[in-house]
Amino acid sequence: MYLCNRWYVAAWNHELGDKPLARTIMDEPIVFFRDADGNPVALEDSCAHRYMALSEGKIIDGCIQCPYHGLEYDATGACVTVPGQAKVPPGAGVKSYPVVERYRYIWIWTGEPDKADAALIPDFHWNDDPDWVAVGDYFYVKGSYRLLIDNLLDLSHVAYVHATTLGTDGVANFPVKVSREEDKVHVERWIFDEPAPPMFKMVGGFKDDDAVDRWQLIHYQEPSHFMIDVGCAVAGSGATDGDRSQGVTMFSNHTLTPETERSTHYFWHHARNFRLDEPELTEKLAKATSTAFGEDVIIIETQQDRMERAGPKKAIIDINADAGVLQASRMLDGLIEAEG
Amino acid sequence: MYLCNRWYVAAWNHELGDKPLARTIMDEPIVFFRDADGNPVALEDSCAHRYMALSEGKIIDGCIQCPYHGLEYDATGACVTVPGQAKVPPGAGVKSYPVVERYRYIWIWTGEPDKADAALIPDFHWNDDPDWVAVGDYFYVKGSYRLLIDNLLDLSHVAYVHATTLGTDGVANFPVKVSREEDKVHVERWIFDEPAPPMFKMVGGFKDDDAVDRWQLIHYQEPSHFMIDVGCAVAGSGATDGDRSQGVTMFSNHTLTPETERSTHYFWHHARNFRLDEPELTEKLAKATSTAFGEDVIIIETQQDRMERAGPKKAIIDINADAGVLQASRMLDGLIEAEG
Amino acid sequence: MYLCNRWYVAAWNHELGDKPLARTIMDEPIVFFRDADGNPVALEDSCAHRYMALSEGKIIDGCIQCPYHGLEYDATGACVTVPGQAKVPPGAGVKSYPVVERYRYIWIWTGEPDKADAALIPDFHWNDDPDWVAVGDYFYVKGSYRLLIDNLLDLSHVAYVHATTLGTDGVANFPVKVSREEDKVHVERWIFDEPAPPMFKMVGGFKDDDAVDRWQLIHYQEPSHFMIDVGCAVAGSGATDGDRSQGVTMFSNHTLTPETERSTHYFWHHARNFRLDEPELTEKLAKATSTAFGEDVIIIETQQDRMERAGPKKAIIDINADAGVLQASRMLDGLIEAEG
Repeated sequence: MYLCNRWYVAAWNHELGDKPLARTIMDEPIVFFRDADGNPVALEDSCAHRYMALSEGKIIDGCIQCPYHGLEYDATGACVTVPGQAKVPPGAGVKSYPVVERYRYIWIWTGEPDKADAALIPDFHWNDDPDWVAVGDYFYVKGSYRLLIDNLLDLSHVAYVHATTLGTDGVANFPVKVSREEDKVHVERWIFDEPAPPMFKMVGGFKDDDAVDRWQLIHYQEPSHFMIDVGCAVAGSGATDGDRSQGVTMFSNHTLTPETERSTHYFWHHARNFRLDEPELTEKLAKATSTAFGEDVIIIETQQDRMERAGPKKAIIDINADAGVLQASRMLDGLIEAEG
Repeated sequence: MYLCNRWYVAAWNHELGDKPLARTIMDEPIVFFRDADGNPVALEDSCAHRYMALSEGKIIDGCIQCPYHGLEYDATGACVTVPGQAKVPPGAGVKSYPVVERYRYIWIWTGEPDKADAALIPDFHWNDDPDWVAVGDYFYVKGSYRLLIDNLLDLSHVAYVHATTLGTDGVANFPVKVSREEDKVHVERWIFDEPAPPMFKMVGGFKDDDAVDRWQLIHYQEPSHFMIDVGCAVAGSGATDGDRSQGVTMFSNHTLTPETERSTHYFWHHARNFRLDEPELTEKLAKATSTAFGEDVIIIETQQDRMERAGPKKAIIDINADAGVLQASRMLDGLIEAEG
Repeated sequence: MYLCNRWYVAAWNHELGDKPLARTIMDEPIVFFRDADGNPVALEDSCAHRYMALSEGKIIDGCIQCPYHGLEYDATGACVTVPGQAKVPPGAGVKSYPVVERYRYIWIWTGEPDKADAALIPDFHWNDDPDWVAVGDYFYVKGSYRLLIDNLLDLSHVAYVHATTLGTDGVANFPVKVSREEDKVHVERWIFDEPAPPMFKMVGGFKDDDAVDRWQLIHYQEPSHFMIDVGCAVAGSGATDGDRSQGVTMFSNHTLTPETERSTHYFWHHARNFRLDEPELTEKLAKATSTAFGEDVIIIETQQDRMERAGPKKAIIDINADAGVLQASRMLDGLIEAEG
């Protein structure tokens, strides 16, 4: 079950080059390419004639040509050329999907096309804002996007899954605050007067015995977008009141697109607004975040396997750390049911 | 759904040597070997005792011995030896299939045995006629034999799929003639006064600016046999009227045997009746044709994947080039229904 | 269908070391580890919180810690720690299974726990008796444990499957005696006044032209345990009457544990009570027996494949050699039905 009348990230924009890109979104095989003006196009990846994958064909003057019999389709999905005959059969074409290029992503709308308002695209400006430098990547995950939503809304796993990358001791003692807006869930934790974790020492110049105030502010926006505001400032320097001048901020943003009920396209970027002109730092952060998020992928894939083998027979328990997870899950269930 | 009361090619005859050959035909696991006189035998590949694959066993005096408990079966499928006991249980045996060795192929009949008349085997004499030299091979294709039938009846894909091997420009402008006999469909195209394609330059000695008359005559015989007559002659030298003395002829023959509904044993040979004693030419042609037909295999496998994922929901369109395909498809559907 | 109220071997005891062991038994994913006292523990391998595989976690003071959120479970399966909260939700826990370490194996009982009496564990003392030296191993077999039971109860396949390892000519002429106890089937063969097979020449010092009396005494105990007494003695020296002083004895013991209906954990050990202090001989026997039993694995996997493809449509025949197999099969069917 998917929430269809929403924008999802289908690809990084640099993935659309000279060759068509094949990607399955919510069980539908889709081909992505650019039209003659460079605008992104998404079409059903199956020729109207005999099902052949258009993504195996060529892009010719902004149209895509089927590799089997040479039928061509324009950006609207209309068939515009059938080799060997003057007229194209009336109505011949393939399904086209609304797409928008924004924030270095290609966004797709798989629901009712007339509801596809680009203003509804969630704000990921950090990914191409000149005041920020962002690194990012794509993971293919053999697990449900719902498990990944739970994962990203949950601060308690950091100490276990990311023990050697993001975790620090003593964090679990600080309370987590969960709040809800109509289309959002916020899970927030402030950690006061503790040493900085390794990544912040690296980027913020904190020393081993420096005490910092640290924040982990997860903003989840349905169906599957995460803006995660993390940072550290000199302890007591006013970060809780909004003064981050003696600290550093990073945004760790994630967005999930179902490939199928049990596999997910996972896009993320990690942005900073300081030391912008240091490519070595960018490189280091890219590597560190990729390692950390990759740790979650392994967890999710194992969890998916056990869940499928357990079937519906197993009763599960909830724990305190699930407060945000449960709110988000109820919200999404409700939206999917309403869309119906 | 298969048409069962027909002959199909099960193997090249050189595949039946010292060891048994295991091959699934129309969903049935079958073992092939030679009896004491060298005649081909086809039996159910599953011992009457405990299902063991006979094809893992040994050929002993023209019988096949189960590798597990040593039961032996003769060419009729009758169990003739059970180790450790004097008498074979009455009626013990496995199914046997009519088989015939002809035209360097092993032919099998999976339908009602009493209808298996060897006179019904289609004519592929080119494969062992001393006036011809044939090269050939076998492809295992993960796609339906029906998709391959469509492929072989269709001249329009040549310009796209085989652009770098068999295709030439300007061919699509010449008309295709489709005709039908009771058990055959013919798809024929004559191309007049055009340059010869690369393969004919190689074999026929045509120069770059020589004009030729060229023919592509596809003779399809149900259920899945193709005799394809291709050639070139000096333009205007009378080839259309039957005088091929100033040209060269090749037969590109294909025959398809379903392994399952979604996989196919694809046998082909390519024969010429000129320059017979030039093994280098034979070698070159073997390579060139194998490359070209391999291009179709990739197409078919992708098409099969998309067709299965599309399910029955997708409406497809027909194009002019499908005239022969549609006739053959209706013929085969009708025959399967009638047998069914 | 499994017989659940029985002991099965889950692992070699040396498989339970510093790290948890994941193994599926009768379709249930189970994690094995040792508690703080070194006693074996078997728990459901799926966290009560969100299904995560506990086997991916750490053993901490004899408890197992979930790698995702750090929940800990003790040897009874009770959840004893939930990070971030003082109280564990009442009743939180995972299923635990009775386990016993005996004869160098870890035994598990998947049925009703209150019936798990360790006195019911079958006698495999040869595997750790100081008067014997045993070599052994584990095979993962992609085939039903029922096919392996048939295989181990059947002496007639030895001449075919093990022609180059265990088989000798002329053995089939000696009669096989089958007898039955309530929970056992015995299949026994004595071979008189014949040359010794290769393995007994190697271990017993018999020469090529020495005549020996040889025994193959298979003791099957339901559900899937085999104690196989094999040996040779100087012909006529009284072995049939119990005097084995001029011969050598080995026990070739096997035990089968279903992973699923179509895959099996196959444990075996091979023990001798002579030349105990010869490690080279131990090494040689380990290699020879592993090779021989591996030959059966290939057979079983092919048989399983053909059986599944044959479906229920194929009638099978029984042969004289099946007498023991049929008795055991009826016994086991009856027990499963009675339990069911």
